[in-house]
Order: sequence, then C-alpha cells, then structure tokens
Amino acid sequence: MKKAKKKVKAAILIIGNEVLSGRTQDLNVSFISNWLNINCGISVAEVRIIPDIEKKIIYNVLELSRKFNYIFTTGGIGPTHDDITALSISKAFKVKYEFNKEAYSILEKYYGKKNFNNGRKKMAKMPKGSSLIYNPSSAAPGFKIKNVLCLPGVPSILKSMIGNLKKYLVKGPVTISDSVNLQTVESYISLELEKLQNEYLKKVDIGSYPFFRLGKVGVSVVLRTSNKIQLKSCLKKLNKIIKNKKIKLFKKS
Amino acid sequence: MKKAKKKVKAAILIIGNEVLSGRTQDLNVSFISNWLNINCGISVAEVRIIPDIEKKIIYNVLELSRKFNYIFTTGGIGPTHDDITALSISKAFKVKYEFNKEAYSILEKYYGKKNFNNGRKKMAKMPKGSSLIYNPSSAAPGFKIKNVLCLPGVPSILKSMIGNLKKYLVKGPVTISDSVNLQTVESYISLELEKLQNEYLKKVDIGSYPFFRLGKVGVSVVLRTSNKIQLKSCLKKLNKIIKNKKIKLFKKS
Repeated sequence: MKKAKKKVKAAILIIGNEVLSGRTQDLNVSFISNWLNINCGISVAEVRIIPDIEKKIIYNVLELSRKFNYIFTTGGIGPTHDDITALSISKAFKVKYEFNKEAYSILEKYYGKKNFNNGRKKMAKMPKGSSLIYNPSSAAPGFKIKNVLCLPGVPSILKSMIGNLKKYLVKGPVTISDSVNLQTVESYISLELEKLQNEYLKKVDIGSYPFFRLGKVGVSVVLRTSNKIQLKSCLKKLNKIIKNKKIKLFKKS
Repeated sequence: MKKAKKKVKAAILIIGNEVLSGRTQDLNVSFISNWLNINCGISVAEVRIIPDIEKKIIYNVLELSRKFNYIFTTGGIGPTHDDITALSISKAFKVKYEFNKEAYSILEKYYGKKNFNNGRKKMAKMPKGSSLIYNPSSAAPGFKIKNVLCLPGVPSILKSMIGNLKKYLVKGPVTISDSVNLQTVESYISLELEKLQNEYLKKVDIGSYPFFRLGKVGVSVVLRTSNKIQLKSCLKKLNKIIKNKKIKLFKKS
C-alpha cells in the first residue's frame, strides 16, 4: 500500500430501507471502521444510512465523495429490483451503466451458462470504468469507481471481500489506543479528564464512556492517537489521576 | 398524540467517536426506528453518525432539522468534556446555553446537595427554551428544542426514556408490514418481484433480503405500506408467485 503523510478519512454509506426501518441491525459499520483503522490507518469520519431511493443515493455519493478521501457503500448490489446502487452511482458520475466484461465472465463461470439468468446478469452491470472488488464467497464482485468502493450488505460476504480493498487504498497513520475501565461514575472524574484533554489537545483524543457490567456501573476512558509516545505519556498521567482519586479498576475484558 | 395526514419523517443523529471508530456497536438506530414506527407512525428517513466535534454537530443539526419533521440525537449529554451536544445545539440555534431550572432541581434532588458536583450540574445545562424528556432510570433528563429531541447514548437509559417522547410528537400513518421467508435465491424470483413492485408502485414497498440460516440460503421478501387493503392484495399476489414457482417456505421465526 502507498502511504499518505496526512490523515486519510472515509465515509460509510449504508444503503437500505431494511436498516433504516429497524428491521435489520447494521453490523457493517463497526466491522469496516475497525478494519480500515487497523489495516489501513484510515479513520471513518462520518456514516450515513439512507433508503433505496435513486436521488438520495446520487446526492449522498456526490457530497461524501467530495468531502472525504474514500466512501465505502454497503448494500444494493444484488439481483433484485431494489438493488439500485450501481445504476445510481453511474448516474451520479454521469457514466454508462453497462456490463463489466470481467464481472460477466466471473459470474457466467460461477453459475454456468444455463443458470446465468437475467437477475444474475444484472450483478455484472456497473458504472463504466469500474475496477472489481473480488468476492471469494459468492462470486458477485463489488466495484470501485473514482473514490467510491461498493460492497454488498450481507455481513458475511462483505467480510470475505474486505481484504481485496487494500490495493485500492492509500495508507494513513494508524490510530493506536489504550483504555482503562474504572469502577466509578463519570462525574467523579470529569474535571480531571477535562484538564487532561486540554493538556493533550490535538495530540490524544480522550473519550469517556459509561457502562453497566454485572450490575455495577463503570466508566471506560479511551485514549486514541497516532503517536505512541504521546499515548504512553497521557496514559501515565491518567493512571496518576486514578491513583490519587483512589478509583478501583475493572479487570480488562 | 395529534395526528398528521401526511407522512411524518425523522432523522437520527448519532453523536459519538466511539461509534464511528467501531469500538461501540450502535444499538439505538434499530430500537428508535422500530419504536417510532410502531408507536407514532413516524418513519426514519436518514441516519447519520458523526464525531464529537462542535462544528459537525451544528452543521448536521441545522441541515437535518430543515429536511425532516424531527431529529432524534443520541449521545453527548453526560457530564464529561466530550459531552458537547447541548452546547453545540445551543450554538446551532443561537440561543443561550444555560441551567434549566427544572433539570437542575431534578438532579439536585437525585444526587443530594452534597454530591451535586460540577460534572453533574453540567447535565442540567441545555439550550434556553428546552423542554425536558424525563429519565426514570438515571435522572439526567434529555431535552427538546424546536424539532430536535436529544437522548443519551447508553441504550438501556435511552430505552427507559423513550415513552416520554410521545407528548412532543405528531402521529403519522403507521407503516404495517408482512414478510415471507423463502427457500430460494434472489435471482430465481427477481423478475417476478420487479413486476409486482411496478404493479404496486407507491402503494406497497417491496424489499428482498438474502440471508443464511442453519447453513441454508434464503430470501426474506418484506412488504411495507400504511394501507391494510393494499398489503393484503399484494401478499396474495406474492403467494401466487411463490406457488407457481414451487418455492418452499421457511418457518416464520
């Protein structure tokens, strides 16, 4: 992978009425975001979930592709009438929506000529000039056009394809993080955390997240940065605060 | 609840670095969306997940509050430095960020005067003119200002508060749905589904979702509408297609 010096930022665009209506629980955002960060040093800076409506897809693809280095879309690339991602993106970028020869041949081979019906053929149609994202589990490829990378919505298929994104991405500085789980409530340490955050402004990002575990309340304090030395130094000061305030830790999970 | 004749549409704005980074799996979108539809006839038409950055919160709150009847925000209303939702929304609407007397008194009573520290007091600060969304589980209220309703990020607390939203909402026509789970693949029925969708255009929304269950592939076909008669008639035709194509059903889960 090529390396960028600056931060590389991405958006995820989840396309699907079933996620918006609450029928389907999205699992792709956390998977993609974690994968991008660990493997590519790319941070997800915004996520949108939108319905299967052409003009909404066009509007959001254009806006997000201008704002971020990459967009990853999920959903809408299957064989049925509600799968309109490829057509909509063709319209967004004003390129032809046509059969991709390589995708056609992959799918024809996979299904066999006899079973290669119109629904299946549809999965070979994509914006002219697309590069393929190969699919080792169910053959139908995703595609990349400009800075937009299109993946399926089914989590297990998406997961099987994700490694094939790497060749299209420029690597940014990887975010590293550490966290402590405290047996306390947020308001008991909020003042000290604010001071610590001000001291490490733009160096370490400090987040505080309350949780319940086995009937006890707790707080996760999470430090995130791309700089190991800053992380170590900030963690040291955080541990000093914890000691001074006599806060007990939870075991790491 | 007052009733609207037209569709009532909402956006959900998830505010939180921890969801964007993939550290925390969002569970609020599907819960809120289902609750709004079943109890209020309100459809969620867009979701955005954004970081804890003031200018991003301001931009998205203003844009979404113009586009939709309601916005529901989650996250960023706790006691720590990274909880900036209330301040940011005050800035968005150019109103004072100040103590809400009722919220102050609720929290003072809950914690006791002695333990009502600055972190906890912060949770009583909100945009001037806000109405409270009561919190039966941990006291700190959410708030409503204009068409923006602000809820906490912790799912269990959010769930305990959701009933208290009703008095602020106008009810739309409730979406009803039905579904069949087929032992087939999407491409086997894509042509027939497309024809059926064209027949029921703007009357019934037909979605097709592939899945894996116990090692078998299947397709959920979901019909959604606010019109019972249309739903029944569309389902009848769908069942005819299934019979003609000799597709077996999965048992309903």
